[in-house]
Amino acid sequence: MKVRILVRLKPGVLDPQGRAVHHSLESLGFDGVEDVRIGRMIEMQVADDTSDEALTRMCEQLLANMVIEDFAIEKLTPSGEPA
Amino acid sequence: MKVRILVRLKPGVLDPQGRAVHHSLESLGFDGVEDVRIGRMIEMQVADDTSDEALTRMCEQLLANMVIEDFAIEKLTPSGEPA
Repeated sequence: MKVRILVRLKPGVLDPQGRAVHHSLESLGFDGVEDVRIGRMIEMQVADDTSDEALTRMCEQLLANMVIEDFAIEKLTPSGEPA
Repeated sequence: MKVRILVRLKPGVLDPQGRAVHHSLESLGFDGVEDVRIGRMIEMQVADDTSDEALTRMCEQLLANMVIEDFAIEKLTPSGEPA
């Protein structure tokens, strides 16, 4: 089973990396960019019998910093599309 | 318009960060993890008339390192779901 975990900063948490990218896009001449937030994507191949609860614990214990980050778990089809 | 850009290492490019996470998950007792790859997620709020071509150029010029990374552009509904 293929799983994608998206980790993003919680709303309200400053994102200096996103601000730097935003400024760089404007410097390159891209208009119309209003906001940029940067997060992580973790793609995992796991055993088919891995429980949702185990995936949640992986995020809480290791993959996300629960103080400042939220996470979302997406199960993917074998071709990589959200299931 | 909300856009999500997923940047991942090309197949075959070594991912030491993914390997470290894989080992850490095993150390924490999570069985059944077969592979871990780490990438970036960039979420942007852009003007509704931003062209697909402009988004592609943003990726090629700044957001992804085309030598070792691939990117995928997903347009999202206002609620954050893939459109």
